[in-house]
Amino acid sequence: MANEDTLYKALQELKDGKRDIESVMALLANGYEDIGFAKVDTSRESRSGSPEVIFCEGKTDLQIKGIAQRMQANSSNILATRASKENYDAIRSVCPDARYNELARMVMIKNKDVEVPDPHIAIVTAGTSDLPVAEEAMETATMLGNRVEMYPDVGVAGLHRLLDNIDKIRCARVIIVVAGMEGALPSVVGGLVDKPVIAVPTSIGYGANFGGLSALLSMLNTCANGVAVVNIDNGFGAGCMASMINRLK
Amino acid sequence: MANEDTLYKALQELKDGKRDIESVMALLANGYEDIGFAKVDTSRESRSGSPEVIFCEGKTDLQIKGIAQRMQANSSNILATRASKENYDAIRSVCPDARYNELARMVMIKNKDVEVPDPHIAIVTAGTSDLPVAEEAMETATMLGNRVEMYPDVGVAGLHRLLDNIDKIRCARVIIVVAGMEGALPSVVGGLVDKPVIAVPTSIGYGANFGGLSALLSMLNTCANGVAVVNIDNGFGAGCMASMINRLK
Amino acid sequence: MANEDTLYKALQELKDGKRDIESVMALLANGYEDIGFAKVDTSRESRSGSPEVIFCEGKTDLQIKGIAQRMQANSSNILATRASKENYDAIRSVCPDARYNELARMVMIKNKDVEVPDPHIAIVTAGTSDLPVAEEAMETATMLGNRVEMYPDVGVAGLHRLLDNIDKIRCARVIIVVAGMEGALPSVVGGLVDKPVIAVPTSIGYGANFGGLSALLSMLNTCANGVAVVNIDNGFGAGCMASMINRLK
Amino acid sequence: MANEDTLYKALQELKDGKRDIESVMALLANGYEDIGFAKVDTSRESRSGSPEVIFCEGKTDLQIKGIAQRMQANSSNILATRASKENYDAIRSVCPDARYNELARMVMIKNKDVEVPDPHIAIVTAGTSDLPVAEEAMETATMLGNRVEMYPDVGVAGLHRLLDNIDKIRCARVIIVVAGMEGALPSVVGGLVDKPVIAVPTSIGYGANFGGLSALLSMLNTCANGVAVVNIDNGFGAGCMASMINRLK
Amino acid sequence: MANEDTLYKALQELKDGKRDIESVMALLANGYEDIGFAKVDTSRESRSGSPEVIFCEGKTDLQIKGIAQRMQANSSNILATRASKENYDAIRSVCPDARYNELARMVMIKNKDVEVPDPHIAIVTAGTSDLPVAEEAMETATMLGNRVEMYPDVGVAGLHRLLDNIDKIRCARVIIVVAGMEGALPSVVGGLVDKPVIAVPTSIGYGANFGGLSALLSMLNTCANGVAVVNIDNGFGAGCMASMINRLK
Amino acid sequence: MANEDTLYKALQELKDGKRDIESVMALLANGYEDIGFAKVDTSRESRSGSPEVIFCEGKTDLQIKGIAQRMQANSSNILATRASKENYDAIRSVCPDARYNELARMVMIKNKDVEVPDPHIAIVTAGTSDLPVAEEAMETATMLGNRVEMYPDVGVAGLHRLLDNIDKIRCARVIIVVAGMEGALPSVVGGLVDKPVIAVPTSIGYGANFGGLSALLSMLNTCANGVAVVNIDNGFGAGCMASMINRLK
Amino acid sequence: MANEDTLYKALQELKDGKRDIESVMALLANGYEDIGFAKVDTSRESRSGSPEVIFCEGKTDLQIKGIAQRMQANSSNILATRASKENYDAIRSVCPDARYNELARMVMIKNKDVEVPDPHIAIVTAGTSDLPVAEEAMETATMLGNRVEMYPDVGVAGLHRLLDNIDKIRCARVIIVVAGMEGALPSVVGGLVDKPVIAVPTSIGYGANFGGLSALLSMLNTCANGVAVVNIDNGFGAGCMASMINRLK
Amino acid sequence: MANEDTLYKALQELKDGKRDIESVMALLANGYEDIGFAKVDTSRESRSGSPEVIFCEGKTDLQIKGIAQRMQANSSNILATRASKENYDAIRSVCPDARYNELARMVMIKNKDVEVPDPHIAIVTAGTSDLPVAEEAMETATMLGNRVEMYPDVGVAGLHRLLDNIDKIRCARVIIVVAGMEGALPSVVGGLVDKPVIAVPTSIGYGANFGGLSALLSMLNTCANGVAVVNIDNGFGAGCMASMINRLK
Repeated sequence: MANEDTLYKALQELKDGKRDIESVMALLANGYEDIGFAKVDTSRESRSGSPEVIFCEGKTDLQIKGIAQRMQANSSNILATRASKENYDAIRSVCPDARYNELARMVMIKNKDVEVPDPHIAIVTAGTSDLPVAEEAMETATMLGNRVEMYPDVGVAGLHRLLDNIDKIRCARVIIVVAGMEGALPSVVGGLVDKPVIAVPTSIGYGANFGGLSALLSMLNTCANGVAVVNIDNGFGAGCMASMINRLK
Repeated sequence: MANEDTLYKALQELKDGKRDIESVMALLANGYEDIGFAKVDTSRESRSGSPEVIFCEGKTDLQIKGIAQRMQANSSNILATRASKENYDAIRSVCPDARYNELARMVMIKNKDVEVPDPHIAIVTAGTSDLPVAEEAMETATMLGNRVEMYPDVGVAGLHRLLDNIDKIRCARVIIVVAGMEGALPSVVGGLVDKPVIAVPTSIGYGANFGGLSALLSMLNTCANGVAVVNIDNGFGAGCMASMINRLK
Repeated sequence: MANEDTLYKALQELKDGKRDIESVMALLANGYEDIGFAKVDTSRESRSGSPEVIFCEGKTDLQIKGIAQRMQANSSNILATRASKENYDAIRSVCPDARYNELARMVMIKNKDVEVPDPHIAIVTAGTSDLPVAEEAMETATMLGNRVEMYPDVGVAGLHRLLDNIDKIRCARVIIVVAGMEGALPSVVGGLVDKPVIAVPTSIGYGANFGGLSALLSMLNTCANGVAVVNIDNGFGAGCMASMINRLK
Repeated sequence: MANEDTLYKALQELKDGKRDIESVMALLANGYEDIGFAKVDTSRESRSGSPEVIFCEGKTDLQIKGIAQRMQANSSNILATRASKENYDAIRSVCPDARYNELARMVMIKNKDVEVPDPHIAIVTAGTSDLPVAEEAMETATMLGNRVEMYPDVGVAGLHRLLDNIDKIRCARVIIVVAGMEGALPSVVGGLVDKPVIAVPTSIGYGANFGGLSALLSMLNTCANGVAVVNIDNGFGAGCMASMINRLK
Repeated sequence: MANEDTLYKALQELKDGKRDIESVMALLANGYEDIGFAKVDTSRESRSGSPEVIFCEGKTDLQIKGIAQRMQANSSNILATRASKENYDAIRSVCPDARYNELARMVMIKNKDVEVPDPHIAIVTAGTSDLPVAEEAMETATMLGNRVEMYPDVGVAGLHRLLDNIDKIRCARVIIVVAGMEGALPSVVGGLVDKPVIAVPTSIGYGANFGGLSALLSMLNTCANGVAVVNIDNGFGAGCMASMINRLK
Repeated sequence: MANEDTLYKALQELKDGKRDIESVMALLANGYEDIGFAKVDTSRESRSGSPEVIFCEGKTDLQIKGIAQRMQANSSNILATRASKENYDAIRSVCPDARYNELARMVMIKNKDVEVPDPHIAIVTAGTSDLPVAEEAMETATMLGNRVEMYPDVGVAGLHRLLDNIDKIRCARVIIVVAGMEGALPSVVGGLVDKPVIAVPTSIGYGANFGGLSALLSMLNTCANGVAVVNIDNGFGAGCMASMINRLK
Repeated sequence: MANEDTLYKALQELKDGKRDIESVMALLANGYEDIGFAKVDTSRESRSGSPEVIFCEGKTDLQIKGIAQRMQANSSNILATRASKENYDAIRSVCPDARYNELARMVMIKNKDVEVPDPHIAIVTAGTSDLPVAEEAMETATMLGNRVEMYPDVGVAGLHRLLDNIDKIRCARVIIVVAGMEGALPSVVGGLVDKPVIAVPTSIGYGANFGGLSALLSMLNTCANGVAVVNIDNGFGAGCMASMINRLK
Repeated sequence: MANEDTLYKALQELKDGKRDIESVMALLANGYEDIGFAKVDTSRESRSGSPEVIFCEGKTDLQIKGIAQRMQANSSNILATRASKENYDAIRSVCPDARYNELARMVMIKNKDVEVPDPHIAIVTAGTSDLPVAEEAMETATMLGNRVEMYPDVGVAGLHRLLDNIDKIRCARVIIVVAGMEGALPSVVGGLVDKPVIAVPTSIGYGANFGGLSALLSMLNTCANGVAVVNIDNGFGAGCMASMINRLK
C-alpha cells in the first residue's frame, strides 16, 4: 500500500545494505512499519491525501525521534505538532534540516516537493492573540502544497477592518477563520462570501470562555451557511481540511 | 415604606369598609402585605424603581389570582410573566382590564400613569424566531414608562440588513439586542454604537445550542465594549435594565 | 444587491400592478425586503452562494407563510427546515407546489432550475436511525444543485459493511458522514478516503449521549485528517457546506 | 473615520516627516492602521465610545509593544489589560509614562484629557479577595472619564456592613457589584437601589465554584430587577459598561 | 432487628392466621421482608432514625401498592414521595386512611404516634413558587414528629420581608431555607442566625438556571457558616435532616 | 462470512423460490444484506459473539418491520430494544411468536436454541425503581444463552439486605449491579466479591442526578477493583458484556 | 452589635491610648471595623454563632496581616483557611502565638476560651488521601469548642473496617463523613446511624472525578436519610455546621 | 479474615519478637491493621481477588512509607499507583526490591508468587501517546498473575494497522483497548472480536477533549456489544478487571 516512491527508496536502501528484508516485507504487506512503540502509517498519504503527522503531546523525546527517523528514511515530508523546543531538538538530531515555528509550536521537514495548485487559501483571524493557531494552519497548508494568504486581526468589534478586506478574502477558494472569545467572526464572514469556511475556535479569552467552549459553541450554532468547525485550537486540522478542499480537481 | 398614593388609597378603603385595620397596619409597618402564601412587596417600586411582578411559573392559579387582587387593591400597575392562557383567565377574573400578549406570554394591567421621558429604547433581534423574547422586553419597557422601537431580523448572516438600520438604532439611549443560535449580534452592534447594549440570549436553535447556552457564552465573551448580559430568554429582565438606564436623569 | 432575475421579475410585477414602487425601491437599495416581523434577505444567494432558508422553529404559521409568500414573489427556490406538518400546510396555502419530506421535516419549493455539476456528494450514515438527518442533508444538497448518493447503515460495529462500499464512496467529491452514539464513523471514513469529510453528529442514543454531545465531541476530536463538523442533527448545514465544496470550480 | 484630533496630529506628523503618506491614506480610508500582525482600530473611540484596548494574553511582548507604539503615535489614551510585569516593561520601553496597577494587572497611559461628568460610579465588593477585579473596573472607569467610589467587603454573610453603606451607594448613577463564591450580593443590592447594577462574578472560591461558574449563574438568575452581568473576572467590561451609562446625557 | 412493636404485631398476625411462618422468620432474621420485587426495610427506623419511605418514581402502581400493604401490616407510619394522583389511588386501595398533599405530591398514612419534642423547625422560602418543595419538607418533618413553622416568600429582592421575620425565625432550633433562581437566601439567613441551616435549591427559574443548578451551586458556595445543602427539589431530604437535628437530645 | 446454518437456509429458500439469487450473492460476499434503508449484519454473531439487535428509537415502524423480517428469514434469534408497544405490534405482524416485556421495553423472538453453560449471572439492583433496566439485562442475557438470578432492592441505605444475600451473589461467575441516585452499590459489592462486576447506572432520581450522571460518575470513580461500567440505563449492554464473560471457556 | 467583652476591651484600649475614638464609634455603630480594604465583622460571632474567618486565597499578605491584627486587637479567636506557609508567616508577625497545621493549610490563634459541651463530633474518612480535608474540619470544630474523634480510612471497598468501628461512630452527636472518588461512604454511614451526617466531597481522584464533582453528585443524590452536603474540600464548612449542631441545647 | 499465609507469618513474627500481640489480635479480629492514618485492608485479596493498592495522590511520603512497611510485613505483593519519583524513593527506603516504571508512574514489589493461568490478556492502544496508561494496565495485570501482549498504535485513522493484527488480538481471553481523542477504537475492536473488551479512555488530546471526556462518552455510547468502560486514564482499573476475567475458571 506504500506509494511508489517510498517503495523504490526502500528497495534501494535494501540493496545498499541500509535496511533489512523484514522491514521491506512489512512495508509491502501492511502499509505501515512497526517500530515497537509505534506503527508508522506509510500509506496514509496515498490513502487519505495527507501524510502521517507526529502529535508530540504525551510522547517521550525518544519516541518522537524514533518516529521521525523512520519517516525520514521513507523520504516523507514530516510535520510535528504541539512540539516543544525540547521535542524540536530531539527531531533535529536525526533530521538536521528541520525548521521550527515557535509561535505555532510546529516542526517542518521538507523531503520532497508537492505540486501547488492555482487557487489559494485565506486565513483570517479575529485578533492578534489568535495568531499561534493561524500559524499552525498556515504551516500545515503550506507543507501540504498550498498558497496561503493571511488576514490577521479583523474581529467583529471593528467591522470596518473586515469589510475593507472582504473582497480580497473572497478571492480564495476556501477560507479558514480563527477566533476566540465569542467566536462570532466565522458567522459574519460566512454571510459575506460564497466559499466554504473552516471555523477554528481558539482558547483565547477567560472566565466563561471555558477554554474555548464559548467560541466552539458559537461556531457550531452559526446561522450562516457553508461553515464547518474543527476542534478548539486545531490549526493543524483546519489546514488539512482546507488543503483537501483547495486541492480538489 | 409604601408610597403615598398606595397609603392614601388603603386608608380610603379602610374608611369605606373594604379593608380591615390589620392589613393597613401591616402595610405601614413592613412595606409588604402578607397574604399567607405570599408577601406582596408594596414598597419595591419606591425602593428599587420597578414594581413587583408576578412570575407565574410554579404558582397555582389561585395563588396568582390572590396576588393580583392584592396588587389591584393597591392601584399598582401589574405585570405577570411566563403566564399561560389559564393564568391570564385567572387574573382577568379579578382584573377585568387585563391585557394578554400571547407571543410574550405576559399579562399587563395599567392602573396608573407613568411619566415617559424623551429618550427611547431600541430592541433589535437577530431573527424572527427571537420575537417572543423581544416582545416580552417591549411590553416590560413600555409598562415601565418608555418609548420603544423594534428592529427585528437583522442577524449577522445578512449584515447589510443591520448596516442599513444602524443609524436609526444609534439614536436610542440604550439598545436591547436579542439573539439565539451563535449569539453574535450584540458583539457586532456593540462595535458599531456608543450606547449601552443589553444582550439577551434566546434558546432558539438546536443541538449544541443546549437551550441557549451557546448564545449566552457568546455574549458573555464579547470582544465589544459596553455590553452586559441577562439570563437566557429573559426579555423581562432586559426591559427592566433598559428602563432603568433610559429613565436616568 | 438582488440578482438580475429577481430584479427583472420585480420590475415586471411593478409594471403589472402586482407590486408597489416602495417594495422595489427597498429591493434595490437594501438587498432585502422588510415585511415587518422579518427582513427577507433577497441578496443572500448572490452574496453567499445559498438562498435564505426558513427556519421554522419559534415562528408562527402566519410568519412562515408571510416569508414564503415574499420569497415566492421573488421566484427563489425555497427551503423550510424543522417544519411540522402544520407549517407545511401554512406554506402550501401560498405555494401550492410545495413538497414535504416528513422524515427530514423539510418543505421544498422549486421555482427555478440550478445547474448541476458533474461531481457528486456521498452521504453515509452509521445506522438506520440516523436517516432523518441524512435526508435533511440530501434534500438540501439536491435543492442547491447537486447529485447525491446515499450509503445508509454502515456503522463501525459491522466494519465489513463500510469496507464493502468504500470504493464507491471514494468516488464522491465530498462526503457527508452522519452518526449518533459514539460518532466514530467519520474518523474511520476520514482515514480511508482522500476527500473532505463533513461530519454530522446526531442525537440518536441515550444516557451519556446527552442529546448528541458524545458524537459531537468524538467528531471534533477525530484523529483523522480532512474532517470538519457541523452542529448536532444539522443535516441542513452539512448539505450547504457539501454543496459549497462540490460546486467549487 | 478617525476623529479630528487624530487626523490633525497625523497630518502634522506627515508634514514633520515623522509619518509617510501611505499610513495617512490608510488612516483616512479605513479607520484603522495595519501593522502586519494587528489592525489598530483608530476609529473605535469615535464609533463606540471607548478606545481600543490591548488585551495582553496570548500576545508576545513584541506585538504588545508594536500596538502601544502605534496608539501612542495617535495620542490615544492607552489601556492594556491582563498585563504581566513583563508586558508592562515592554510597553514602558515605548511609553515611558505608563503606570502599572499590579493588583489589577493593568497598564494605563494618559495622553489626553477626557471630560468628567458630575454623576459617579460606585464599585461594591463582597470580599477583600474580589479587590483585583474591582481595581480593574476602577482603573478602566477612571481612564474613560468617571469619578469612582469603592465599597469593598460588604458581602451578605454580614449584611449590616452593606446596610450601613447603602445610602451612600444609592447616590451613584450606576453601581458595579463584584462577588465570587455564591454571588448573592448583586441580587441583594439590586433589591435595595433604583439604579442600574452591573454584576461581575469572580473566580474567587473553590470546589463547586468551578472557576466562577457558581457566581455567574447566580447573577444571571437574579430575582432582582435592573441587573445585568458581564464575564467572570471581567472588571474591564464592567468599567466600560458603567462608563457608557454614567456618561449618558 | 425489627423493633418490638413490629415483632409483636407480626406474631399476633401469625397466631391469627394472617401471616405465614416464613415471613416472620424473614422478619426475625433479616430486618427486612422480601416481597419479590422489593425488600421492605423493617429495621430502618430503629437503625437510622427515620422509617423507609416509598419513592414512587419509576415504580408501577402494583409495586407501590405491594410495598404500602407490607408496611401497613407492620403498623409503620408511611410516607410516599413523588406520588402522582394515580399512585395515591393505588395506595388508598390498601390504606384507606391515606392523605394526599397534591402540592407536595406526597401520601401520608399515620399508623402510630411519634413523640414531639419542644423545639421546632422553621421553613423559609424565597418565593411562592418554591412552596411545593417547602410543603414536602413540612409534611416529612411533621410525620417524623416535629412542630413546623412556615415563612413563605421572603426572598432577597425584598429584604425587609426577611428582616421583619428574622427574630421569629431565630427561635427555631433548625432552619430549612428553600430557594430557586439565584439561591441567595440561605447565605443571607445563615449570616443572621446562630442555628444550623439546611439549604434546599429548587428548580424554579429558567434559562441559565439549568434545572436548579444555579441555586445548587450558589448554596454550596455560600460564604455563610452553618449551612449544608440537600439535592435540588429535595424537600423530603431536608425534612429528614432537620428532624434528625431537631430531635437530638 | 455468514454462518453455515444461515447459508444453508438461504440456499434452501433460493431453491424454493422464496429468495432471489442476488440476495444470496450479497449474503455470500458481504456478510450483510442490503434492504435499502438498512444493512442487516448477518455475520455479527459469528464475528462478535452476539447477534445484531434492533435499536428501535429513531426508526419508523416500517423500517423495524423490514429489519425483523429479514432477520426472521435468516432464522436468527431477534432482540429489539427501546421498543414501544407500537413497535412490538409492527414486529408481531411479521414474527407472530414475538414476546414483549413491557417493563424492559423489549421484544424477543427465539428462532433457534443456544447452548447454556453451567455458570450463571447475578443481577443485583439498588431499588425497585431500577427494575426496568435490570429486566432489560436479564432478557438480553437469557436470550444469549445464560442462566440469570435476580436480587432486587438491596441498596446501601439498608446494608443488611445486601449482606444477607452476598453469599448467594458470590456464587455467580459475573455480577451485574444496577443502581440510580448515588450509584454506590457497585463499589460496595465490588469490595465484597472476587468476581467481575458490570455496573449499570440508571436515570432514577431527580435534581442533581442529571439524568443518571451522578450514578455514572460514581461508578466510574469506584475505589473497588474489578468493576467496569456501561452507559446509563443500558441494561442491554450489561447483558451482552456479562454473557460474553459468563460464556468464556 | 459587638459583644460585651469586645466592647469592654476596646474601651479599655481607648482609655489606654491604644485606640482612637473613631474606631470605637465605628465598632459601636456598625458591628464591624473598616480598615480600608476590608470590613472586619466584629459582631458575626454573637450574631451567627461562629467568628469571622480569614479566607486567604486571593488576598495579599499585607491584607491578611491587617485583618489578623484587627481581630487580635478584639481578642477574638482567629482562624485562617487556605493559608500558605507565606500567609502563616505574615500572620505570625502580628500574632506570635499562631499555630500552623500544614496538612489542613490552616492557622489557629486562641485568644479566649470557649466552653466545650459534653457530646462530641465524629469525623470519618474514606481514605488516607482525604485526611487534609478532615484535618481542616477537625481544627475548625475544635477551635469552635467541640471534642472531635477521628476515624480515617474506612472506605466502602473494605466495608469491614467501617462495620468494625460503627458502634463507636454512633456515639457521636453528629458525624462528618469525608470522601473523594465515588463518594459512597456518607450513604452507607447514613444508613447505619440515627445521627445527622455532614457529607464532605473531596477532589481526591482523577479522570471523570472532575475535581470532586463525582463525589459531590453522589452525596447530593444519597438514598440515605439525614445527610446534607457542603462544598467540595470544604472541611471548614463541615466543621462549622457540625459545631452548630453539636452545641445545640 | 486474613489469609492463612499472612496469619502464619504474623504469628511467626510474634514468636520472633518482631510484632506485638495487639497487632496480631487486630489482624485476627478485623481483617485490617490500624496504623493511625490508615487501616491497611489485609483481607482484601482473599475477599475481592486483588490486593489493596497504594494510591499515592494526596498522601504524604511518610504515609506511603508507613503503609508499604505494613504490607511488606504481611508479605503481600505491593502495587503503588500515581507514584512520583519521590514516592518511589520513600517506598524503596523500606522495600529495597521495589521496581519503578516511570512511564506508568507505578511501583511494584513482588513478595510472593501468583499462579499464572493459560489464557492471556491483549492490550491495544490507539496511539503511542496512550502508552503510559497501557503500561499501567500491563504492570497491574502482570502483578496479578497474567500473561499480557501489547499492540500499540493501531488507531482508526490507519485501519489497516488494526486489521493486520486482529487475528492475534482475537486469541486473547479478554482485551483492553486504550484510546484518547475520539475514543473510537473500542467500538471498532468490539465489532471484530467475540471477547469481552475493557475500554480505557485517556486524556490525550486537547480542546474539546476536555481532559478525556470525549473519549469517555464515546466509549460509553459504543454501538458494539461486549464493551465496558473504566475511568479516564485508569490503566490500573482496567488491569484489575481484565485479570478478574482472565483468571475466571
